[in-house]
Amino acid sequence: MKKTALFPGSFDPFTKGHEDIVLRSLNLFDEIVIGVGYNSQKVRYIDIKIMKKLIEKTFAKHPQVRVEVYEGLTAKFAEKINAKFLIRGLRNTTDFEYENTIAQANVHVWNEIETVFLITSPHLAYISSSVVRDIHKGGGDVSSFLPYQI
Amino acid sequence: MKKTALFPGSFDPFTKGHEDIVLRSLNLFDEIVIGVGYNSQKVRYIDIKIMKKLIEKTFAKHPQVRVEVYEGLTAKFAEKINAKFLIRGLRNTTDFEYENTIAQANVHVWNEIETVFLITSPHLAYISSSVVRDIHKGGGDVSSFLPYQI
Amino acid sequence: MKKTALFPGSFDPFTKGHEDIVLRSLNLFDEIVIGVGYNSQKVRYIDIKIMKKLIEKTFAKHPQVRVEVYEGLTAKFAEKINAKFLIRGLRNTTDFEYENTIAQANVHVWNEIETVFLITSPHLAYISSSVVRDIHKGGGDVSSFLPYQI
Amino acid sequence: MKKTALFPGSFDPFTKGHEDIVLRSLNLFDEIVIGVGYNSQKVRYIDIKIMKKLIEKTFAKHPQVRVEVYEGLTAKFAEKINAKFLIRGLRNTTDFEYENTIAQANVHVWNEIETVFLITSPHLAYISSSVVRDIHKGGGDVSSFLPYQI
Amino acid sequence: MKKTALFPGSFDPFTKGHEDIVLRSLNLFDEIVIGVGYNSQKVRYIDIKIMKKLIEKTFAKHPQVRVEVYEGLTAKFAEKINAKFLIRGLRNTTDFEYENTIAQANVHVWNEIETVFLITSPHLAYISSSVVRDIHKGGGDVSSFLPYQI
Amino acid sequence: MKKTALFPGSFDPFTKGHEDIVLRSLNLFDEIVIGVGYNSQKVRYIDIKIMKKLIEKTFAKHPQVRVEVYEGLTAKFAEKINAKFLIRGLRNTTDFEYENTIAQANVHVWNEIETVFLITSPHLAYISSSVVRDIHKGGGDVSSFLPYQI
Repeated sequence: MKKTALFPGSFDPFTKGHEDIVLRSLNLFDEIVIGVGYNSQKVRYIDIKIMKKLIEKTFAKHPQVRVEVYEGLTAKFAEKINAKFLIRGLRNTTDFEYENTIAQANVHVWNEIETVFLITSPHLAYISSSVVRDIHKGGGDVSSFLPYQI
Repeated sequence: MKKTALFPGSFDPFTKGHEDIVLRSLNLFDEIVIGVGYNSQKVRYIDIKIMKKLIEKTFAKHPQVRVEVYEGLTAKFAEKINAKFLIRGLRNTTDFEYENTIAQANVHVWNEIETVFLITSPHLAYISSSVVRDIHKGGGDVSSFLPYQI
Repeated sequence: MKKTALFPGSFDPFTKGHEDIVLRSLNLFDEIVIGVGYNSQKVRYIDIKIMKKLIEKTFAKHPQVRVEVYEGLTAKFAEKINAKFLIRGLRNTTDFEYENTIAQANVHVWNEIETVFLITSPHLAYISSSVVRDIHKGGGDVSSFLPYQI
Repeated sequence: MKKTALFPGSFDPFTKGHEDIVLRSLNLFDEIVIGVGYNSQKVRYIDIKIMKKLIEKTFAKHPQVRVEVYEGLTAKFAEKINAKFLIRGLRNTTDFEYENTIAQANVHVWNEIETVFLITSPHLAYISSSVVRDIHKGGGDVSSFLPYQI
Repeated sequence: MKKTALFPGSFDPFTKGHEDIVLRSLNLFDEIVIGVGYNSQKVRYIDIKIMKKLIEKTFAKHPQVRVEVYEGLTAKFAEKINAKFLIRGLRNTTDFEYENTIAQANVHVWNEIETVFLITSPHLAYISSSVVRDIHKGGGDVSSFLPYQI
Repeated sequence: MKKTALFPGSFDPFTKGHEDIVLRSLNLFDEIVIGVGYNSQKVRYIDIKIMKKLIEKTFAKHPQVRVEVYEGLTAKFAEKINAKFLIRGLRNTTDFEYENTIAQANVHVWNEIETVFLITSPHLAYISSSVVRDIHKGGGDVSSFLPYQI
């Protein structure tokens, strides 16, 4: 049976921290769907279509990775694409507490889902999408945080 | 002397996690006031009058429990109703850090108040009001999270 | 029905942090039993009989407080003395994680027990029995950490 | 390529919490080796040969699970049996901090190893081997903590 | 070489907790710049010019302390005023996780910067600007939280 | 006035994580004393005299760094050598909780002492003395963890 995993997030933007998690998950799954969550109530910093293309470009050499935009509950989208695994990166204890709650809630929505966690590589652990946005807004250089050029 | 405790929250909505804390507190206090905090600057997901009635229905068989809506500082409301104890549930370390700060601030506002903590039962610890709202918005079933029907 | 609470610990030694928790619990319970846990496999810094007397002296003016030495499982001792409440102080998140585990385990041993937590007053939160022992061994003055004279 | 994972621990004793992690990992890996770490400097509560048999019995119906005793560095043992994945359960933030450190150290010892984390199911999260030992020593019933009879 | 440190924050308002950190830093640095961050997208509770004057008044007797308003990235402002040290107070583990991330991001923006942390004195650790605002909005007395009169 | 800081620890062994903290502290202090704590009740993995020499060799080019062995309370030793600052590295939240307690206790022993914290550089944060010992005992290569050759 093909093992499909969903790596969900808003990816605003997708960072080298996210790339790290996907690359390390390649050996674990046959197919990885990077799900870019769309939320009509949140203004994005980077347009979701542009982001989708940048992520696709990042994994162009990895045919087992594909990118999809979805709206609504993550666990419902996972069920729809038959992805029985969610991949999540953990950077610190604040992440852990949050992810613990979300993981249980996802099982409630679809009881066949299993969340698999990798710990973000230490040299990338401080790179969050919000840090990247803040530095970019402030005129700082963020190219070393991103796996693609902008 | 009658021991009155205030269980404050926005309860948007009131969950089985909240119910668990109230039920376990019944042996500890003579009277429990569930205080639904009203904040004019926050848009509620569920109307506060409807929520008040649903909570009252939940504890219809427990005459020592009553529900009140309040506005402003929790410790001032506690003083007003002469509730010398606050009840709070702890789910995880993030809760703990937050509650620790609030508990000291409440003593500052009314120095006779004591906050009593219970740890949320493990099978309910992932149920937060915001998780319930997110799942409900996304079309998921939340009936098993709530002690009443909606 | 009389509300009896057990405040268990090794109390080697009993500190002002412990005293703070007991004094703040007096309004909550009719009777508080301070249970000094005896563990034959651990060498105490202060003899358990001497400690029992020092704690008794500390609460001499509070007839609703008594001190007992016990051995074995805390929840079994609570059951034996019919104390349906355990009192525990929380100083920080490390305490929280530990106490969370123990509280659930105690319910397993005696399912009528409820653990009630107070957060240690901030100016006392750094006083642990092991800090007191270390400072005392090192020749430092610990009198301000203890509610009795040694 | 066969995906082999090592689930290492001292398992003194192996609990339902451990069983939960193994069962949930079955879909993820082709083969799971439960590695019971032997440490000549620690006195075990339960003999390692007896524990090995009890774990084997627990997974008798799962031919993709096998049990091995090992000594020395976990990452070296993983390399020896060509298990490129380590499985670890996370119960709380204290676990997270510890596992974060160990995961990086394991990569140092064998740079092909990847640690995969599952969060322990909430109703099992308070069951640790040390809690089981303490309750058993104190004469409490631990049968509901263990996936086998003792 | 003169050691200049920047103590950045929104200081809305500046509290006794902030004062504590500055006073304890005086022995460590030759000059301390309190940088009040201006963010055009956030509505302040207290006007930034008024706050600047109140902080200046607080440290009127300390010529090595000066107050400046800045906009944009903290690390860029530090570079501009040649402050190679940032001072930050830590109150609890939530602060720690946040500050850890920010400290690494600041090094990314200006690689000569070093963040120096002091732990907030326990009796002040619960005083955050947001707690002060909430109590003030609710009509409570906040004078004991502030090092100046308002 | 000369600013002297004490960097205390058991340093069994001194790691690149420790070296990182000392090097980053050089700009902050005029003199740094690395204090190797001797505890007669603990068996060391590496002889304390050998460790002292290895640390001295590590900082041979930094005349403002010197190494001393001490016994007893850290704050008393700091007072004896007139070091008004303690330097400590923080790796994670577990460190933070522990160091928070110790910092307050040190002020109790000598009220002129101030503890200054740096956050360990992320790529070194998982290197603890105990991890180094465990890997070394297990026959792994630890040379990249240490700033000197053994």
